[in-house]
Amino acid sequence: MKEGVERISSAKLSELMGYTASQIRQDLNNFGAFGQQGYGYKVDFLYEQIGNIMGLDKEYSIIVVGFGRLGQAMAGYIDQYEKQFRIVGIFDVPDKVSSIEFGKVYVSDMDSLKEFCRRNKVDMAVLTVPRSEAQHACDAVVDAGVKGIWNFTSVDLAIPEDVHCENVHMSDSLHELSYHLKDK
Amino acid sequence: MKEGVERISSAKLSELMGYTASQIRQDLNNFGAFGQQGYGYKVDFLYEQIGNIMGLDKEYSIIVVGFGRLGQAMAGYIDQYEKQFRIVGIFDVPDKVSSIEFGKVYVSDMDSLKEFCRRNKVDMAVLTVPRSEAQHACDAVVDAGVKGIWNFTSVDLAIPEDVHCENVHMSDSLHELSYHLKDK
Repeated sequence: MKEGVERISSAKLSELMGYTASQIRQDLNNFGAFGQQGYGYKVDFLYEQIGNIMGLDKEYSIIVVGFGRLGQAMAGYIDQYEKQFRIVGIFDVPDKVSSIEFGKVYVSDMDSLKEFCRRNKVDMAVLTVPRSEAQHACDAVVDAGVKGIWNFTSVDLAIPEDVHCENVHMSDSLHELSYHLKDK
Repeated sequence: MKEGVERISSAKLSELMGYTASQIRQDLNNFGAFGQQGYGYKVDFLYEQIGNIMGLDKEYSIIVVGFGRLGQAMAGYIDQYEKQFRIVGIFDVPDKVSSIEFGKVYVSDMDSLKEFCRRNKVDMAVLTVPRSEAQHACDAVVDAGVKGIWNFTSVDLAIPEDVHCENVHMSDSLHELSYHLKDK
């Protein structure tokens, strides 16, 4: 789309993505009929439809829990690149609370998290606390009614069934890298 | 291992990991005979062997390219949790150079990267520069002879065949989260 391409075949998508054309057609067919035989896919339509599949036709309110370097980095990332995700609150331990802010969002005390989530619609929490605080922070967020957790703590969190958690295990990709480099 | 368990069956591993026991046995068998029928796996031996497979029996020298919030966060992460990876250099644009340091490592000018890599053994580079600088920084690192790239820029980098790149696409897991939450 960035390159002004208006339509694209599954064969060309295959080339770009490294999956077979038939796999790509099959995957997309699971969600609807987005292409036409002989014509391929309309790029802007496909882009929009994939966004809809991912739930990106909506807006999500997100809080950041743990505002150290990683929390600040992720808040910056969301703010700059993820327009469907709006940071509505930031929480940390008391001694970090007064010193920093992010745009118009001030950093609040963890103790006020539950009350905040009760008064504001909060869809997701980014967990960027230290490992030792991970389950505790997770419990607080779940207790406050938040149903989505983006977990950067590298801790396997215990959560109820109605909460969804996506884990970002940094070390996985770092160790894949060392695996590939070990004999070089 | 943390819980003092000395041996474990593939059935129990299956429970913990969410893969079938036969898949786990098969995967491990690809790398050697680590278990014994009826006995299972010795936990500390398995831990060590998996580490060896991943190349974690060696030490890697790593440089951080781009020392904004994310670069600082990742440097902190590596320093604290990834003992096999040693940060030997940090590089950024000139106006960030003098103001910050990380432990005993000072932030150097990007222009000195090539000379630095020529004088020091550097196995990997963490790329945490802005998207607009990603390919340029990648080229500099590759040109300096670095064979491994841990790429946080969300840009698909063009690299030679003898360089290995692991991409951390933050948005993938965030969009998986929105996918799961969209109908809640």
